[in-house]
Amino acid sequence: MIQTPYLLFLGDAPDPLAAKVAQGIKDWRPENCVGQFRLEGCKADMGLPDMTLAEAYEAGARTLVIGVANRGGKISALWKDVLLEALETGFDLASGLHNLLRDDPALVERAAATGRSLHDVRVPNVEYPIANGEPRRGKRVLAVGTDCSVGKMYTALALDRDMREAGMSCSFRATGQTGILITGEGVPLDAVIADFMAGSIEWLTPDADPDHWDIIEGQGSLFHISFSGVTLALIHGGQPDALILCHEPTRTHMRGLPGRALPTLPELQELALTHARIANPDCQVVGISVNTQHLGEEEAEAYLAELEKEMGLPACDPYRDGAAKLVEALRAL
Amino acid sequence: MIQTPYLLFLGDAPDPLAAKVAQGIKDWRPENCVGQFRLEGCKADMGLPDMTLAEAYEAGARTLVIGVANRGGKISALWKDVLLEALETGFDLASGLHNLLRDDPALVERAAATGRSLHDVRVPNVEYPIANGEPRRGKRVLAVGTDCSVGKMYTALALDRDMREAGMSCSFRATGQTGILITGEGVPLDAVIADFMAGSIEWLTPDADPDHWDIIEGQGSLFHISFSGVTLALIHGGQPDALILCHEPTRTHMRGLPGRALPTLPELQELALTHARIANPDCQVVGISVNTQHLGEEEAEAYLAELEKEMGLPACDPYRDGAAKLVEALRAL
Repeated sequence: MIQTPYLLFLGDAPDPLAAKVAQGIKDWRPENCVGQFRLEGCKADMGLPDMTLAEAYEAGARTLVIGVANRGGKISALWKDVLLEALETGFDLASGLHNLLRDDPALVERAAATGRSLHDVRVPNVEYPIANGEPRRGKRVLAVGTDCSVGKMYTALALDRDMREAGMSCSFRATGQTGILITGEGVPLDAVIADFMAGSIEWLTPDADPDHWDIIEGQGSLFHISFSGVTLALIHGGQPDALILCHEPTRTHMRGLPGRALPTLPELQELALTHARIANPDCQVVGISVNTQHLGEEEAEAYLAELEKEMGLPACDPYRDGAAKLVEALRAL
Repeated sequence: MIQTPYLLFLGDAPDPLAAKVAQGIKDWRPENCVGQFRLEGCKADMGLPDMTLAEAYEAGARTLVIGVANRGGKISALWKDVLLEALETGFDLASGLHNLLRDDPALVERAAATGRSLHDVRVPNVEYPIANGEPRRGKRVLAVGTDCSVGKMYTALALDRDMREAGMSCSFRATGQTGILITGEGVPLDAVIADFMAGSIEWLTPDADPDHWDIIEGQGSLFHISFSGVTLALIHGGQPDALILCHEPTRTHMRGLPGRALPTLPELQELALTHARIANPDCQVVGISVNTQHLGEEEAEAYLAELEKEMGLPACDPYRDGAAKLVEALRAL
């Protein structure tokens, strides 16, 4: 549906985490990324060539993807000129922000005048049911985090890659805009109406063959007061058979909530499992995925080894080392 | 905003619980209820006079309030004829269903032709913020339940009544359609977009005088897989100082989820308090509210006495006995 390849718009991202949409596309579909477009003061860098709109179009890019999120998901005035010019240059636009491209009269008018498309991948286009909690066939694994943005999507995508390589039957089930931009389908969970959140996840992960794994992309954290309700709906709608705990060990406070400490991994394990067993009494925590990007190699290895001893669970950084340990734990379940 | 008094529309309610919107209005604002309108097969009864539309209009009713909920909140075809005729008769319509009156072309056309108003009280009309978790002044109490529809709203409304009578400063904060129909304002939480749920509750319960109590209406249950995410957003956005546990002791399974048992009160206490202390480390469980409508008087008394001994907390049925015990517990906090 969305034309590739992309030019990734990083805007005036205040930090690299704000551009995690672009980072996800670049890491998991690098062949779809021609270059990046940055405004003054942008603190994110995908390591792609910085290009003007004309250069990127010349190089083959056909969609400008907004790869940066702001709190609240607004389309800022700063960005608007670039988006309008992109439509003139010949680009479609794709966005996962709360504020929709289609709700901006100037963009709608310019898109109509130039014959271009506006893709709002965040908008639900399905009438989701209310969750009924009935057990579904097939297996499901969900990544849950001590905080937001600790690597849950990366963990799920790495699992998807490594389970396929291991010959297992699986599907990555996207629940956020990046995942949807990567796979072309999914549920934009944080834009779903509250009553239908859990039902949307039941819809996303239907009955399947007994040996098929749905790898459900996690969202938020049970411990993050801004988004915890979304996380709980994901746990109860997903009725996972397996949980993977995700953590970023250098984080000093919950993302966006200065002064609020992260929970420990045992705290996450207990709370997530308590909730998961309400939906699926057989659920198990099978492993730990650590985002070690801010640790040196030896430091990361030592941290993971210590963690495995303390928690009695396999622990790895899927981005750095691959997800083989987690794949084996799932296979053994 | 909504013209009173009301004619309460009970439709073809499959059971009395389905008409809890009407029941709430009738119990807490009886002076606003002229009569009830029922279709064939209706299993609910408010004990109000059954009236035709013409009779109710003659008796002074000016708004037909849809007092019955269906799973998924649809406006059924069966109801449509009555609603159209009500507009002709001179009634405004008020509804808290997910499917909006304003989205029905026939109703919109008839309302325009007759000069009547369509009130969709469920629809958010505010751009809520994302929750920031910052501590707010004033005190907050929230009712949490072992299941949906166990009496959380009744508990909150009884507290509001009895705290006022005791001379305390307080506000009932509605989070559902019935509460909003009763008070004329609030947050229709189950219709809020997922990312903004907790923020909408921060907005609803702002900074206040140190001795002021916001009595926040509960929704769903942490243990109800269909709606648990809504409940958690309420706990984290509300940052309550006090929790009241709500229970219906004769319920054999979670509402709408056959085969799924209710949690025990100690399980609810532990899980709700664990979550509440993430937002407000000082939160306490102060009492238990039991819906004893299906117990005889002696049976109810014995149950409450035993519960107080087991849990070490005051326990009462606010509807039957008033909320004085809970008011005292809050005052002592």
